[in-house]
Amino acid sequence: MDDKNRVVRTAAAQMGPIARDEPRASAVARMIKLLEQAARDKVDLVVFPELTLTSFFPRWFMPDQSEVDAYFETEMPNAATAPLFARAHALGIAFSFGYAEICRHDGRLHHFNTSILVDGAGQIIDRYRKVHLPGHTNHELWRPFQHLEKRYFDPSPFGFQSVDLLGGKIGQAICNDRRWPETYRELALSGAEMALIGYNTPRHYPPAPEHDHLQDFHNHLSLQSGAYANGMWVIGVAKAGLEEGCDLIGGSAIVAPTGEIIAQARTLGDEIIVADCDLARCAEIRTNIFDFAQHRRPDAYKRIAGRTAHPD
Amino acid sequence: MDDKNRVVRTAAAQMGPIARDEPRASAVARMIKLLEQAARDKVDLVVFPELTLTSFFPRWFMPDQSEVDAYFETEMPNAATAPLFARAHALGIAFSFGYAEICRHDGRLHHFNTSILVDGAGQIIDRYRKVHLPGHTNHELWRPFQHLEKRYFDPSPFGFQSVDLLGGKIGQAICNDRRWPETYRELALSGAEMALIGYNTPRHYPPAPEHDHLQDFHNHLSLQSGAYANGMWVIGVAKAGLEEGCDLIGGSAIVAPTGEIIAQARTLGDEIIVADCDLARCAEIRTNIFDFAQHRRPDAYKRIAGRTAHPD
Repeated sequence: MDDKNRVVRTAAAQMGPIARDEPRASAVARMIKLLEQAARDKVDLVVFPELTLTSFFPRWFMPDQSEVDAYFETEMPNAATAPLFARAHALGIAFSFGYAEICRHDGRLHHFNTSILVDGAGQIIDRYRKVHLPGHTNHELWRPFQHLEKRYFDPSPFGFQSVDLLGGKIGQAICNDRRWPETYRELALSGAEMALIGYNTPRHYPPAPEHDHLQDFHNHLSLQSGAYANGMWVIGVAKAGLEEGCDLIGGSAIVAPTGEIIAQARTLGDEIIVADCDLARCAEIRTNIFDFAQHRRPDAYKRIAGRTAHPD
Repeated sequence: MDDKNRVVRTAAAQMGPIARDEPRASAVARMIKLLEQAARDKVDLVVFPELTLTSFFPRWFMPDQSEVDAYFETEMPNAATAPLFARAHALGIAFSFGYAEICRHDGRLHHFNTSILVDGAGQIIDRYRKVHLPGHTNHELWRPFQHLEKRYFDPSPFGFQSVDLLGGKIGQAICNDRRWPETYRELALSGAEMALIGYNTPRHYPPAPEHDHLQDFHNHLSLQSGAYANGMWVIGVAKAGLEEGCDLIGGSAIVAPTGEIIAQARTLGDEIIVADCDLARCAEIRTNIFDFAQHRRPDAYKRIAGRTAHPD
């Protein structure tokens, strides 16, 4: 662990809703506008949400696979996103964003819910695919809207990782991943000092509507506890607002390794929040109460990697 | 999972400070007084803190092992605690409390930081020994007070478990265990619907005094996130107040499976808080967002049980 300051000036670039018929070029133009705002703040890294290029399409049942595939990208960068890559490169700013990806793996095409991390020279240095896919597989007519991530996406076979960037180690996760303590622990054990996590979270959860009023609380509880228990910066970034009749929470937040929220979005629209994230501050926690080498007890954690569910 | 109500009326019995020279009989008399208050509230289960019978002795370096051993119990129940067992049995109330235990295991004497769970018939049905021992091994003169749990206690070789009680599954953990997400997950995967967690937490943390003002926040963040991410009731119970010159936080709390605190102590002294904990409410979370069988990904959690620390 390095004791000298290693400050990464970071922007969480919250996005407002994206309409079903909004072209990617429009979403990318909004991203570039936020990027340029961040540049005026001399930011090193801009973090965009999950599925930034399109509307959150798993809310619709689409029997025709070609209609589904139209929401996916088959290469990256591509014609729609090239202007974003070019502008960020010109500004020397690193960035991450989420999108739906079709790619070949193990001899067949996979559909992933993906987030990439791009360095200041425009190179993709990390591709993360979502591990925890929420929702359901089949069309459920009783729901006011669907949540078909388990239908449209393959779960990642790659797990969690982190990469070197801006003098530190950065990892990624996506949306529902942030609710699982294992996500942050795996990232921290891979070396991550900062986790970038975009999300699209409906305020209304059809299977348990009695918890709708707790969505913002659960969002921050997850981000803050993950940061604290791992002595890690966590950048949570929403796609927010009323998107195609579906209310998405905002609350984008930059969380310090102490679990404290040090910057938080005020709107449900396109908005950047900025904070100086000193990666050296991870040591405040990691060399103390959560000194893993001193205090972790992997021998007592065998059920966690060994069994899926509660006992019968 | 059972859908009908399974309400366990539960009291968190916070204790104020226990002086170094306070005899066990005095601590037990205070416990009985809280037990009888709880009985008037028709409580099923009373949860006492960690090391309830004595002062928090790991704050003192004692070169003479016989002086250390005087804080330990070699049998349970014993003469000092028999009146508590008898009174609880007469009232038909289940209870748990923590104490320092010397016992034989694997052919040698072990010193454990222990918590036991006793049913309404006075039988000890669970013995939990602390897995995550915080603090340090050697006398560190720079500290205003010591935290010698690693010196005085053996780490538990037994891990986490849960037992049947009051129509549900109950597990235990102790103090520092509550900061580790693995604790709650192991308990939940063993079937626990409620975790009983006593603690002695100094407000001042000598290695990182800049976090002293965050102690209450970190306590509740840990208890609430553990409850939410596992759809589990969590009963956090402090030994609180100014004990032998050391400020201990209070904030005893009963946390619902949604992560909401539904009862919280108001003092730093002997105090009970009571709530009706419906174990059937675990299903609100466990059959939904945290349906482990549907959504956990143990194949992606290999580092958690496989490696102790951050990579070099």
